[in-house]
Amino acid sequence: MAGGLLILAAILFSSLLWAKPMNRFIVIGEILLVTFGALGFWDDWIKIKGTRREGRSEGVSSRIKFLLQVGFAAFFAFYLALYPPNPQFALHVNIPYIKETYINLNAIYFFFAMMLFVGFANSVNLADGMDGLAIGNLVIAAGAMLVFVYMAGHARFSQYLKIISVADAGELTILLAALIGAVLGVLWFNSYPAQVFMGDTGSLPLGALLVYVSIAAKQELLLPVIGGVFIAEAASVVLQISYFRWTKGKRIFRMSPIHHHFELSGTTEPKVVVRFWIVGVILALVALASLKVR
Amino acid sequence: MAGGLLILAAILFSSLLWAKPMNRFIVIGEILLVTFGALGFWDDWIKIKGTRREGRSEGVSSRIKFLLQVGFAAFFAFYLALYPPNPQFALHVNIPYIKETYINLNAIYFFFAMMLFVGFANSVNLADGMDGLAIGNLVIAAGAMLVFVYMAGHARFSQYLKIISVADAGELTILLAALIGAVLGVLWFNSYPAQVFMGDTGSLPLGALLVYVSIAAKQELLLPVIGGVFIAEAASVVLQISYFRWTKGKRIFRMSPIHHHFELSGTTEPKVVVRFWIVGVILALVALASLKVR
Repeated sequence: MAGGLLILAAILFSSLLWAKPMNRFIVIGEILLVTFGALGFWDDWIKIKGTRREGRSEGVSSRIKFLLQVGFAAFFAFYLALYPPNPQFALHVNIPYIKETYINLNAIYFFFAMMLFVGFANSVNLADGMDGLAIGNLVIAAGAMLVFVYMAGHARFSQYLKIISVADAGELTILLAALIGAVLGVLWFNSYPAQVFMGDTGSLPLGALLVYVSIAAKQELLLPVIGGVFIAEAASVVLQISYFRWTKGKRIFRMSPIHHHFELSGTTEPKVVVRFWIVGVILALVALASLKVR
Repeated sequence: MAGGLLILAAILFSSLLWAKPMNRFIVIGEILLVTFGALGFWDDWIKIKGTRREGRSEGVSSRIKFLLQVGFAAFFAFYLALYPPNPQFALHVNIPYIKETYINLNAIYFFFAMMLFVGFANSVNLADGMDGLAIGNLVIAAGAMLVFVYMAGHARFSQYLKIISVADAGELTILLAALIGAVLGVLWFNSYPAQVFMGDTGSLPLGALLVYVSIAAKQELLLPVIGGVFIAEAASVVLQISYFRWTKGKRIFRMSPIHHHFELSGTTEPKVVVRFWIVGVILALVALASLKVR
């Protein structure tokens, strides 16, 4: 939790200092960090207080937490559908690896964006169960996303690379650079064996921010590639629970999220973490390759 | 050693498959990998045989090893001075962070390049003393260098960014991408606790290759930034030995190379390694920032 607060403070401070304060992408990004951060903090706080009082606590009731996430997600999805990054492609998504091919999702775009926010923020949260795992992969994913949002915001490069151009979105490069710096700073103490954790205070807003930047860069469909490790972590939980219910008691993995499966299979924690980072780097390169493929 | 052989085989195979086979930068890069790789392999091999026979061995006599390295370095430095990447800046080095400012080193360039080859190859070798440390930092340094050589090789980007343009050097992007892939594959098993090591077979040629690419991209002076972790490791050894001799027995660090100093100060090995990676990432970003600074 302390790590999460530090990360949010560092990002907000740097973005206020270095980014254009009235750039709309920056303002909305800051609001997003604060709202999702406050939700995460509330949850962390009740968990800590609960632990102190009764030994164990589940945090905010998971139903209230989920409803609030959906509410926040709806707000940002609605804003992005109403004031789209590029009006010409307001409700379109770009098909990666095929240049200048788009799908018009129409009204579905709103629900699609909402699902991304809720799903991805929780995926990052689930991945944050081993020292350095989520934080390291956030560095990698943010690095890749930074390239996309920079290119989308650059009139000449976006034209040359045939990607959707988004005026003013280049300013988000600063927010992501601040994120990378802040998160690297916390990784210094969060790597195995960890002394500091980011908690929901960090994982929820950072996950939501990656979704937000992917929408601002109009690369929504590359998010599952860039953030593939997070998605896989969430998918392992969904698969495990569904299979358990369906078979009335059988399991696919020894434990979910999947990083615990590998640990229980005999790979030590620091090695599992580095391997998840390696997969993250490869996925980031696969995503970046979409810039060149014609 | 097994890791080093695997890395070299993977890079050479990929570059033969994907790069233009007659591109001069590729051909010289391949020769460099083979020569420095053979030297490293010879050393590793004698160490292993020696260990088996008499319990411990120092490898190839350090004098012969050093002379061979100097010889190889002289060959490549001579080639690069005689057939410079960009004839207009044959014996010049670019001053980073100040656009379009160069120093003409004249004949000194040859010795400067030689020193870079020998010094940096051995720096990587010295850094390769903790699980994943050197290999992880090679990924990071190669990633940054890839951007520079790609930009230098791209006529339009190099002009836009006001860096020295080098016709045909862009092909080295493929060699570096192959390096990153190969090295990530070995890191999978080399990360803490390591099951596979690259040995001198890997560290010498990979260090030399980074020097070679920095010269091909005409970013010689950025190499100490991008490879700052390696330089720091080597510098810690030089400082320790010099100080020890000068004071007749006192030490600056508990042990050199400096990664052991931190380990002996109570930081666990996986944490020291991740922190050295973090420093590597920050240095890579500092180097990349030179592209934008005017």
